[in-house]
Amino acid sequence: MNQDNSRIILAHGNGGKLQADLLANWIFPEWGGVVLPADRDSQIMPWSSSQLVMSTDSFVVDPLFFPGGDIGHLAVCGTTNDLAMSGAEPRFLMCSFILEEGLPLNDLRRVARSIGQVARELKLQIVGGDLKVVERGKGDGMFINTSGVGCLRGGKTPGPERLRPGQRVLVSGDLGRHGLVVLLSREGIQFTSELQSDCAPLWPAVRALQDAAIDLKCLRDLTRGGLATALHELAQSSGQSFLIHENHLPLLEPARGACEVLGIEAVYLASEGTMLVVVDEEDVAPTLEILRARSGHQLACEIGQVVSTNPDLGPETRLQAEWGAPRRLGPLLYEALPRIC
Amino acid sequence: MNQDNSRIILAHGNGGKLQADLLANWIFPEWGGVVLPADRDSQIMPWSSSQLVMSTDSFVVDPLFFPGGDIGHLAVCGTTNDLAMSGAEPRFLMCSFILEEGLPLNDLRRVARSIGQVARELKLQIVGGDLKVVERGKGDGMFINTSGVGCLRGGKTPGPERLRPGQRVLVSGDLGRHGLVVLLSREGIQFTSELQSDCAPLWPAVRALQDAAIDLKCLRDLTRGGLATALHELAQSSGQSFLIHENHLPLLEPARGACEVLGIEAVYLASEGTMLVVVDEEDVAPTLEILRARSGHQLACEIGQVVSTNPDLGPETRLQAEWGAPRRLGPLLYEALPRIC
Repeated sequence: MNQDNSRIILAHGNGGKLQADLLANWIFPEWGGVVLPADRDSQIMPWSSSQLVMSTDSFVVDPLFFPGGDIGHLAVCGTTNDLAMSGAEPRFLMCSFILEEGLPLNDLRRVARSIGQVARELKLQIVGGDLKVVERGKGDGMFINTSGVGCLRGGKTPGPERLRPGQRVLVSGDLGRHGLVVLLSREGIQFTSELQSDCAPLWPAVRALQDAAIDLKCLRDLTRGGLATALHELAQSSGQSFLIHENHLPLLEPARGACEVLGIEAVYLASEGTMLVVVDEEDVAPTLEILRARSGHQLACEIGQVVSTNPDLGPETRLQAEWGAPRRLGPLLYEALPRIC
Repeated sequence: MNQDNSRIILAHGNGGKLQADLLANWIFPEWGGVVLPADRDSQIMPWSSSQLVMSTDSFVVDPLFFPGGDIGHLAVCGTTNDLAMSGAEPRFLMCSFILEEGLPLNDLRRVARSIGQVARELKLQIVGGDLKVVERGKGDGMFINTSGVGCLRGGKTPGPERLRPGQRVLVSGDLGRHGLVVLLSREGIQFTSELQSDCAPLWPAVRALQDAAIDLKCLRDLTRGGLATALHELAQSSGQSFLIHENHLPLLEPARGACEVLGIEAVYLASEGTMLVVVDEEDVAPTLEILRARSGHQLACEIGQVVSTNPDLGPETRLQAEWGAPRRLGPLLYEALPRIC
């Protein structure tokens, strides 16, 4: 059969010999030390905890490669970050590809390499996966689904049900870089070379905070919809409200500039390595000290607090500018920026 | 905003208010009794076993709806069947959608309904999910990923490492219907109205066999690549060989006719509710009795046996026709039929 053997063909998706060869030659070598043999339909793993923490995400980011990361890096970070937000140590990952016919095999290998690197960094095991191929024009290069299982660790589990007025709201780093970088890459805008996606695993920072016995009341990563949407969801599920100080929000100078030029509100931009951390007042200083000592979290700071809800207004998030009355922040409504993750 | 509000738009994928409304109005009502609230990034579930069984699959079947099932039904069956093949009871499911802009919301609801029905039938809990939207022309209506966690049950775990010469190879029903039905639907061929996909959950049958204390040596569902590919993989991972009798293979008459007319070998066609069951000789009769008493498994039968491997040839599967020497069956090579699951 005469064909370009540097690209994905439909037969790679058939579950037969060509798929087995593709996995053996292009994917599994990049997953050395973290992938388990795939000689059964499902994988059996030992488990010693009385609870499971589970999360799943599909990734359709466009472009596949962007400054600071790629779809594979993003997928492992996104799914393990969701586990970390429950205070769970990520343990097992399953990884499933939907490839478009014609995808360069080298792109697949680069992405597999990123997945392997983050998995090794987090001591994850890749215990299962799947690979499908769709015809040219029926997909967009590569979509990835990652599903993770984690193990609860630390004291009380962080969650919206533990939010109370008076608690302090912190962010673990500067905001909005991932969303901006994807937007600028996609549009081919050469804005500045300094701006890179913040995409990174959050579990090491959460673990460090647990090790210091910080009582983490609530954690939330700031992905799709950004800070505003995360706070809106937390308000809805907890019944509490938030007051956030706009001039406390940490933004890198080039990000602030890009937002101004493009007319984008940073509170709606996605981060992929930045989380909201809610703690009691006395835990603010040690939390910030631990975070700022870690790469990627130097700009961690307090941005506001949990406040009691006005029964007439219901749970809400208010953003206080330097002057004037605070304005109410809604969740993201219409899509400014599709496919950022 | 002026738009057709019966279809998926990009903003449904933004993780904001429109997505929340879509889930609340079009998906969660169909998952009543099986879906858990989604107010955190990851779900925490109780677990009482010392092992986890995990599986993940992405589904890209074309068309989305076919005689006997749809992509949602197929997804839950496919993932829970993989768990059942390890003798595990499916417990938790995560379900992630990649939708193409313009998909009719009614199609999404029909698929969600199928997922809810199978989940209820299996007493599964849907503990997490995700939903992304890609632009028109960058997907194909709907792709679904399902990931499942199950709990080992029964005595020894079935697996290729338990295969030994002399054991008997059974199939739990007739072969190839799913693959044929998808092919015929896609090509718009009106072959016969009798042919429906065999897509169905296999866990109830596996559980019935466990309850009867049948020692299940090995189980494998016959999806992509069909019987021939499943046997090839089992031979490779076990080092054992198989001898299969072609005239024992159960095929419905219209399926046999369609294969002849279309020039397709039934052993490479996918089934989605039929499994290979390997047992000792003395367990053949009770296994077939239990299977045949169940809907969908009336044509269960013995098709061959595990045989010792010729060291010169290596592990192989041979297909014995009514006369002549047996021929060697390879795995599926080039794709005859993409996107059957």
